[in-house]
Amino acid sequence: MVRIAVLGCGRIGRMHAANIAAHPRAALGGVFDVHRPAAEEVASGLGVARFESAQDALASPDVDAVLIASSTPTHSDLLEAAVAAGKPVLCEKPIDLSLERVNLCAERIRGSALPIMLGFVRRFDPGHRAVAQAVRDGTIGELHQVAITSRDPGLAPVGYLKESGGIFRDMTIHDFDMARFVLGEEVATVSAVGSRLVEPQTMAELGDYDTVTVLLTTASGKQCVITNSRRATYGYDQRVEAFGSGGMAISENVRENNATFHGAGFTGRGTPLLDFFIERYAAAFAAEISAFVAAIEAGTAPEVGFEDGRLALVLAEAALASATEGRIVTVGEIG
Amino acid sequence: MVRIAVLGCGRIGRMHAANIAAHPRAALGGVFDVHRPAAEEVASGLGVARFESAQDALASPDVDAVLIASSTPTHSDLLEAAVAAGKPVLCEKPIDLSLERVNLCAERIRGSALPIMLGFVRRFDPGHRAVAQAVRDGTIGELHQVAITSRDPGLAPVGYLKESGGIFRDMTIHDFDMARFVLGEEVATVSAVGSRLVEPQTMAELGDYDTVTVLLTTASGKQCVITNSRRATYGYDQRVEAFGSGGMAISENVRENNATFHGAGFTGRGTPLLDFFIERYAAAFAAEISAFVAAIEAGTAPEVGFEDGRLALVLAEAALASATEGRIVTVGEIG
Amino acid sequence: MVRIAVLGCGRIGRMHAANIAAHPRAALGGVFDVHRPAAEEVASGLGVARFESAQDALASPDVDAVLIASSTPTHSDLLEAAVAAGKPVLCEKPIDLSLERVNLCAERIRGSALPIMLGFVRRFDPGHRAVAQAVRDGTIGELHQVAITSRDPGLAPVGYLKESGGIFRDMTIHDFDMARFVLGEEVATVSAVGSRLVEPQTMAELGDYDTVTVLLTTASGKQCVITNSRRATYGYDQRVEAFGSGGMAISENVRENNATFHGAGFTGRGTPLLDFFIERYAAAFAAEISAFVAAIEAGTAPEVGFEDGRLALVLAEAALASATEGRIVTVGEIG
Amino acid sequence: MVRIAVLGCGRIGRMHAANIAAHPRAALGGVFDVHRPAAEEVASGLGVARFESAQDALASPDVDAVLIASSTPTHSDLLEAAVAAGKPVLCEKPIDLSLERVNLCAERIRGSALPIMLGFVRRFDPGHRAVAQAVRDGTIGELHQVAITSRDPGLAPVGYLKESGGIFRDMTIHDFDMARFVLGEEVATVSAVGSRLVEPQTMAELGDYDTVTVLLTTASGKQCVITNSRRATYGYDQRVEAFGSGGMAISENVRENNATFHGAGFTGRGTPLLDFFIERYAAAFAAEISAFVAAIEAGTAPEVGFEDGRLALVLAEAALASATEGRIVTVGEIG
Repeated sequence: MVRIAVLGCGRIGRMHAANIAAHPRAALGGVFDVHRPAAEEVASGLGVARFESAQDALASPDVDAVLIASSTPTHSDLLEAAVAAGKPVLCEKPIDLSLERVNLCAERIRGSALPIMLGFVRRFDPGHRAVAQAVRDGTIGELHQVAITSRDPGLAPVGYLKESGGIFRDMTIHDFDMARFVLGEEVATVSAVGSRLVEPQTMAELGDYDTVTVLLTTASGKQCVITNSRRATYGYDQRVEAFGSGGMAISENVRENNATFHGAGFTGRGTPLLDFFIERYAAAFAAEISAFVAAIEAGTAPEVGFEDGRLALVLAEAALASATEGRIVTVGEIG
Repeated sequence: MVRIAVLGCGRIGRMHAANIAAHPRAALGGVFDVHRPAAEEVASGLGVARFESAQDALASPDVDAVLIASSTPTHSDLLEAAVAAGKPVLCEKPIDLSLERVNLCAERIRGSALPIMLGFVRRFDPGHRAVAQAVRDGTIGELHQVAITSRDPGLAPVGYLKESGGIFRDMTIHDFDMARFVLGEEVATVSAVGSRLVEPQTMAELGDYDTVTVLLTTASGKQCVITNSRRATYGYDQRVEAFGSGGMAISENVRENNATFHGAGFTGRGTPLLDFFIERYAAAFAAEISAFVAAIEAGTAPEVGFEDGRLALVLAEAALASATEGRIVTVGEIG
Repeated sequence: MVRIAVLGCGRIGRMHAANIAAHPRAALGGVFDVHRPAAEEVASGLGVARFESAQDALASPDVDAVLIASSTPTHSDLLEAAVAAGKPVLCEKPIDLSLERVNLCAERIRGSALPIMLGFVRRFDPGHRAVAQAVRDGTIGELHQVAITSRDPGLAPVGYLKESGGIFRDMTIHDFDMARFVLGEEVATVSAVGSRLVEPQTMAELGDYDTVTVLLTTASGKQCVITNSRRATYGYDQRVEAFGSGGMAISENVRENNATFHGAGFTGRGTPLLDFFIERYAAAFAAEISAFVAAIEAGTAPEVGFEDGRLALVLAEAALASATEGRIVTVGEIG
Repeated sequence: MVRIAVLGCGRIGRMHAANIAAHPRAALGGVFDVHRPAAEEVASGLGVARFESAQDALASPDVDAVLIASSTPTHSDLLEAAVAAGKPVLCEKPIDLSLERVNLCAERIRGSALPIMLGFVRRFDPGHRAVAQAVRDGTIGELHQVAITSRDPGLAPVGYLKESGGIFRDMTIHDFDMARFVLGEEVATVSAVGSRLVEPQTMAELGDYDTVTVLLTTASGKQCVITNSRRATYGYDQRVEAFGSGGMAISENVRENNATFHGAGFTGRGTPLLDFFIERYAAAFAAEISAFVAAIEAGTAPEVGFEDGRLALVLAEAALASATEGRIVTVGEIG
């Protein structure tokens, strides 16, 4: 059993803690949160220890690895501390909102052979994964074009948005990673446009966008489009399409169940889309823990590593530059 | 060019007349209707002759064949007259509501080598036909089970229902033919149930049902279910499913177009079903004319013949006996 | 925490044990199996006690309730013993293959106020349940017709089939319960046909069928069709359709994920159907445990009770009589 | 009856001629083709006159309007001649491959009140039109994003490609018009990328691309993505998606019929996509003639006019500039 401590007991941390507890080859090695009652609730609910500090968790001989689900500004410090303590890490995205800080972190952990995994959970979604697999195994021939649609069911609170780093670093970053995952080749150029259509005034005050489209290319000429919106009234819209010389694979949206309804006023209405990410990506979050456990057991590099986290942020920076400067940006300019 | 006269200029006759006029290898050879203005309208609209009587049409040297789309009680007389006149016939279903009369008609036309075709148009629907083809060519292996769903968008007027011969002879008869078409083997037993759920009082007064389910078997053990309702609020529901040792084929409903709509109140709503039979089976009606023309040109028996019309009526009689007597009926008892 | 002991550690028992262990308000109270290594494996894997006998489990003060997942012939004895011991029971279907034995069991447990639940898991499937709910809440108006399609991906081993009680008691029994669940009204007549099409020789030797269709009616005229096959090459086919005065609801098949593939040789191919019942009904099995726990906590009758198990068997007997005697059977004749 | 002469009897011209002949309020007023046998075949097949020259057709008192379906280099000359002759025109796209020539043509026909219609047939497709309508009528709220996918089933012959003006002017031009149709607002900026992935060598020799993606924005911040490929192995891929503040509308692909097939090797395979444009857009081509006839009857401007043809070419020029120069192009730079 791999004993994993969870640092951060917010909504995502609690979900991870439960998944670890339910995993057949993992055990929850204790939890920590700066907000003590949050940690107490998880600790008592799942019957595990509560640590007084992240340092205590990292120092504990009963902890084999840590999962970092605390607030974004603490990620890179905790990641460095975990590596220093010799503990494998699964870190929620992003590593940090500052590329400079991420690059510094990269410097500091350079050379470590520990499994360091980034929480790009969508790579583990069965549908998206089937599309990526169809690219890898040649089912759709040589890849030519990728289209990623990713729309949130509703705008996050302004307080969240203020600290989010902006839509490219906060939301599109998942799609940048998905693009790299499906493309199987690094992105060379980025062309992005951003608009304020959902909440124009809020977005203007934040200096942020709520509606963006990004066009990526690779050196070999593969093309990828990412379409984002902060609010889709019909639910959490998550689709991935890959097109190649031999065909096309599409990961369609997922509904609560496969019931349909047909009436005078609703011809062929489907059950609502699964909403929100914890529900939509439930299987993916469980598979992510499995992948982390397997990497620790095998002592190998996880499927999604630190550099994947860094490169997604590089693309976010490139997209921001493209959208604000009105030009196509070469990724090499950024990082 | 095969010159075809249309007898009967009601809604269906008009549609057939236009299809004949538009057919590349057929010409409309004139029209007749007991209601003179109806015939006049079609004749002038399509620029063809109007006959003073059905006999005139049958006697005309400019008419190579006739399509009978007049009222049901005239079908068998006209069919016999056409055969006597040596003209190939495409007769709308049913031949007659009385099996006795149909059998007499069979006697009278026995030995004729003329193409005599019955208007079971659904056999020519591209989707249903693809299912039947998947049975014929072994795509789904040996056939085991068939399910036919057939629901009208709304109840016909009481006046129509009174003369209809009842739901089994009027509506299910199409599905009996479809069952024989897909099964590729004659029906041996019939078990039917009828209910009055759509318009209980009207149906009780008519001594008819509005909701029926029929279970058919063949000698080799194939099973077929037919489900009918006189009113589906969501539109004209027309589906055929065939299941066999190698798989399943389904002809799904057809919509006005393939647009879908997704909103807060309508998650994945589809465009309405095509409604009613003239719209839903537009391609089938055109293909039916083609098949009739081809049979005349080749001098061969049409794909759907007189005996197909007679056997569908036999199954309707068997179903009525089953539903009213509460027993499984052997087809051999009827005809 | 409700402490539930699992009796029987075969494939289904192990699955139930894991679900109980993962349930937030239940605990696995120990396991028993006549095959000691099977019980040992589950006990050590989940860190719980192994009982030396079912009686030990029933007598244990640390066991609040039992789940019976042992071989069918032991069900009724264990159920009676559990009731005698004052422990709520969740019993896998069927109670017994003999209606006489089931009726005797009913006699013996009469008057008990204990929650006794039958394992008709499909009632808890989110899709099927949404259909039943659409009937209950009037979304589709007054119910008129139900169609249940239920086909296994492959024939069970002959050894299993021999002890199964035949297709109606073993396989269709799930659909009889689903029919009663969706219809919301007792079945009045049964018309069934059985064929030997999948494995004719094996079935003839067993005196069983592999392909059946059943037509049910209720006193108010509702109609229901059940279509079964022991082998569908395309996977585990599980669909439920309800049609009423206001519309239709369909619970469609469930796939491993929502990816589709489009190529020269596979236009619009879907991901395979979930296969087999443990995978297809995973969410339903978990919800079933929840319902059992909730009934125990509330001290109320479970949603699916002993009488539901008995009535499904009555319908199986009626179907068998109908199929073998070639007549429509009135349920009142049987039980 | 509006008598329409067809100039050009190639594949598209023949199809238009048959649609005109079948139209209830139009008549085919004769045909012309520089290749005499082509015109003779259509003229005799449909029983109409063959003109010796386009000028004869334009001069004929029996011709009320003309449809130009001749080779691209003749379009602008014929269009100008038709206007000079006072005949309404339906001109196949493009007006010309040279924006300079199109601008000159615009000069020359300036002030004419004749109905001049451009053959952007996709605007009349029922599915695409339903999406545009959902934008117009507010079904999806305020429009935010549009995604147009348009892939041909196979590469045209090199001879055709050489004269085509390149992918942006030949293929994407349809999507530029669709973008303008759905957006309901002029395009402000164009960012395009082009690759040679289908036939790299051929494309390099032609100085053309076979795989392009284009990102458009409007002044108000609406975003639109167009994805093109010259070869999709699964058929003619034609989809339009519109996303807005109130929901989403998608025009999905259209299949030959709605049959599906399910087997061990083909789980849920659909019938092939309709292929190629004459089949896929059959209903749209017929509706286009209706719109032309209606505009002539009413003496009003057609729904798709000369300026629409010119503006689509402007966008093609902008996309070409963007793709070759690696920068986001402002439409105002071009025209």
